[in-house]
Amino acid sequence: MIEYDKPMDIERRSFEIITQLLGEQVIPAENELVVKRVIHTTADFDYAENLAFSDHAVAQGIAALRAGCDIVTDTQMARSGINKRVLEGLGGQVHCFMSEAEVAALAGRRGSTRAAASMRWAAEHVKKPCIFAVGNAPTALLELGELIRGGALSPALVIGVPVGFVNVVESKQQIMDAGAPYIVARGRKGGSNVAAAICNAMLYQIAR
Amino acid sequence: MIEYDKPMDIERRSFEIITQLLGEQVIPAENELVVKRVIHTTADFDYAENLAFSDHAVAQGIAALRAGCDIVTDTQMARSGINKRVLEGLGGQVHCFMSEAEVAALAGRRGSTRAAASMRWAAEHVKKPCIFAVGNAPTALLELGELIRGGALSPALVIGVPVGFVNVVESKQQIMDAGAPYIVARGRKGGSNVAAAICNAMLYQIAR
Repeated sequence: MIEYDKPMDIERRSFEIITQLLGEQVIPAENELVVKRVIHTTADFDYAENLAFSDHAVAQGIAALRAGCDIVTDTQMARSGINKRVLEGLGGQVHCFMSEAEVAALAGRRGSTRAAASMRWAAEHVKKPCIFAVGNAPTALLELGELIRGGALSPALVIGVPVGFVNVVESKQQIMDAGAPYIVARGRKGGSNVAAAICNAMLYQIAR
Repeated sequence: MIEYDKPMDIERRSFEIITQLLGEQVIPAENELVVKRVIHTTADFDYAENLAFSDHAVAQGIAALRAGCDIVTDTQMARSGINKRVLEGLGGQVHCFMSEAEVAALAGRRGSTRAAASMRWAAEHVKKPCIFAVGNAPTALLELGELIRGGALSPALVIGVPVGFVNVVESKQQIMDAGAPYIVARGRKGGSNVAAAICNAMLYQIAR
């Protein structure tokens, strides 16, 4: 028979080990729990260097969540990883419009990807403040940038962590220049799991 | 207006870049598409070294999927990332029992984690050949090892890629010694996204 530890004990020990392994590496206090949760999710210490934050992005994200904002993701997987119990307790919901027929139609009309169309759809139809969490599609991030620069969207926060090899680095650079609060994983790394981890890191600072 | 590339073109270019960046690194041909898809999902080339395969594990996984096997995951997130259209076209389904009341009760009775109980539950209740895809909980992998060694379970394949800092490395070592076909990410890295990517890499070798 196997001896089982409680999940919360394991998480606490994991964070202690991460803190130890980070050693002398300096992470601004306000970003620390986000950086550590992403490392906890990936076991990848590159994120201690990669993650870039606009001024007080974490505080702004937490304030928005506390006020009941929604979260829009570009994958069902990111949607699935976000703690909906905590989010809904605050009055928020998580949306992913990737599978909606109207989004496919919008993508067809605009000659865009479905991911890009799902962001435009959200900007037009979700009538609440939103955090946009992009873990997969650089085109979603490019579209958000265009909406923000055009004045059609003022997101509470953009989490820009698509992963990949084509247009990914460029899409992250342009969202950092778009003028909205951001948390971005510079370079090629990221993912739906990273997007969800960043959302959860903020949610847990409110609800744990 | 942004110029959009087709998702399949982006994926093809991404795989070309991954191939280029792998350079001289030798990956056995039968494992190649699994390794490359995991790198595509994470942008993390460590997986070219980390992934360990029992003899012909990929061929065995593909044969099982082709015959209509089910997949059991330890997170809704992994479940969400697996291509269900292709899997269902082959006659398979993906299960995650983590949220079932009976699994919580079983965990309570056994003093185990829900993740471990969800594996035991699947072993007892899913009456088809299964691939087990563990991307999160080392306790799920430990429980699978106990079930396999006790003769209570003969999985078609175990994908053992939990991520983390406590019991993770040990859980992966014991599943590699348990006697069932395996694909394991040695070390601390892994995740639900990696578990889903490995499943999809096999599914796409059948259906693309």
